[in-house]
Amino acid sequence: MPDLQALFESAREGDRRSLARLLSQLEEGGETAAQLSALLFPYTGNAHVIGITGPPGSGKSTLLNALTRAYRERGETVGIIAVDPSSPFTGGALLGDRIRMQDVAGDPGVFIRSMATRGSLGGLARAAREIIRALDAVGFQRIMVETVGAGQVEVDIAQAADTVIVIQAPGLGDEIQAIKAGILEIADILVVNKADREGAAATLHILQSMLSLSQPAVIRHHGQAMTIQGVKSSREGWTPPILQTVALSGRGVSELMEAIERHRAYLEESGEGEARRRRRIAEELAALARERLWARVVHQVGRARLDGLVDQLLRREIDLHTAVERLLE
Amino acid sequence: MPDLQALFESAREGDRRSLARLLSQLEEGGETAAQLSALLFPYTGNAHVIGITGPPGSGKSTLLNALTRAYRERGETVGIIAVDPSSPFTGGALLGDRIRMQDVAGDPGVFIRSMATRGSLGGLARAAREIIRALDAVGFQRIMVETVGAGQVEVDIAQAADTVIVIQAPGLGDEIQAIKAGILEIADILVVNKADREGAAATLHILQSMLSLSQPAVIRHHGQAMTIQGVKSSREGWTPPILQTVALSGRGVSELMEAIERHRAYLEESGEGEARRRRRIAEELAALARERLWARVVHQVGRARLDGLVDQLLRREIDLHTAVERLLE
Repeated sequence: MPDLQALFESAREGDRRSLARLLSQLEEGGETAAQLSALLFPYTGNAHVIGITGPPGSGKSTLLNALTRAYRERGETVGIIAVDPSSPFTGGALLGDRIRMQDVAGDPGVFIRSMATRGSLGGLARAAREIIRALDAVGFQRIMVETVGAGQVEVDIAQAADTVIVIQAPGLGDEIQAIKAGILEIADILVVNKADREGAAATLHILQSMLSLSQPAVIRHHGQAMTIQGVKSSREGWTPPILQTVALSGRGVSELMEAIERHRAYLEESGEGEARRRRRIAEELAALARERLWARVVHQVGRARLDGLVDQLLRREIDLHTAVERLLE
Repeated sequence: MPDLQALFESAREGDRRSLARLLSQLEEGGETAAQLSALLFPYTGNAHVIGITGPPGSGKSTLLNALTRAYRERGETVGIIAVDPSSPFTGGALLGDRIRMQDVAGDPGVFIRSMATRGSLGGLARAAREIIRALDAVGFQRIMVETVGAGQVEVDIAQAADTVIVIQAPGLGDEIQAIKAGILEIADILVVNKADREGAAATLHILQSMLSLSQPAVIRHHGQAMTIQGVKSSREGWTPPILQTVALSGRGVSELMEAIERHRAYLEESGEGEARRRRRIAEELAALARERLWARVVHQVGRARLDGLVDQLLRREIDLHTAVERLLE
């Protein structure tokens, strides 16, 4: 425990190797991670957490880079978490994203962390929350979490953010499939990046139509009738703005930053920020409790009894619900 | 309970409305779902479950359609589960996929079910397994589960399958990002669909390179150096074949079906099929037990006490791990 305290203090003082080690400890899980998590918890709650999500090829990383530079110019420190849930086994995907981030990688006011899931469903989202809290506790003012979008895990990670930015771009393969209703519903701010490309107006039009409807409707796209799902937000007091950017040239980035500030102000004034923080911590508490309870059961009944139940299940002698009841008796 | 028995029997006899109602009951969860699940469990374990996953625009639905027609020609019945985890809130995405499936929708030997998550992380994967078992229990011989690929939930759902087919296609936006190592690692069979399109050879080359390596390496792609992650499978006795198809014209579909049969035979002969079934049911048992345990805790400590702990967490008076300990005391 004294070592963990020293590690945390060193990380707070700006030592990057200590911070990297601290994050690795948290990702590993187990008793040390729990101690660290408890240690840094009182220091959390200050950062503004921004989720950035969108499909491959939408220019997320470039936009994140541009935002980071802009925050740095204002003197704010930035922590970046790049999540790649598509690589649950190897612990790392292709290097494209990381290469694009070299721009800001040398800056001491910026810290970049890549994460890949390597285990249970939900493990990544949980670990991401621990990493967010750690970057918060050591003093980063803005924390940006980048995910590739579309999956439930990404939705879950995005919901760990105060402000969620959903990025689309024109011409990403099959547009009918690419713009998904679920990912739009979590958006606080929508961005059509690569707005100088052909098809940007059409992408903008589809997004506007989706957001203005609460029912499916038929619109015309490239001269063809296309059914779209309405995803009109039920949130009071905040209509997600749709912005256009060209991240490569920086066009629209300052407007995006203004929208982020407006959303941050809205969160505090409306009480929605408080409500989100509450929901989030309650969910984390439940998830952690479920893990602990299961660990206790395994410890108490033992592996042999557990294997015996699995054998019976495989032979269809009992069903799952009966097995659970016997297990928890 | 007698009603559920009647519903199940009617579904087994081929009544589609009963089957649809049964599946809805299962998706809803709760006590009725648990009873139904227990009721049909002894009848499961006969179907061959095929997972089909790939990015939007890769032609998954078209290929699934072609496979379905081919199985129907052989006289086999086919259950199809279309999972859309990207739509966790509205319960439905755009209608593109469903339109593409009209082809087989009128056939009484085919049953199609769409699913969208609407709740907790992991809820979709669990519900999908219940739906798979139900289609198995009422007698469908092939069950195909289609997911959009790339996320952890999709990986989890794919792992509920006996044979996992991963589809890629040339020219899907940013190829560096599109071909993800994680999704390749779960592939039993790889397919480059739209093989008549420009770029198919390059996509094939990238896949072959990734599968032949166990370490990252630099290859040349469009004249540029590109770093790829090696994902060489550690499985004994089975090397995932890479096939080329043009689903629209049917090219390569019979070769794909042969590969599926080879894989099915491999599963039984090697014992790998048994090992997968074992792992799967053990995981389900654990997940179900965790849910039950948490429900008990909530019931015992009560909402008020739970809210009180959340308040303390929000004020940073206690940390998560301390809160869990107090909860489980």
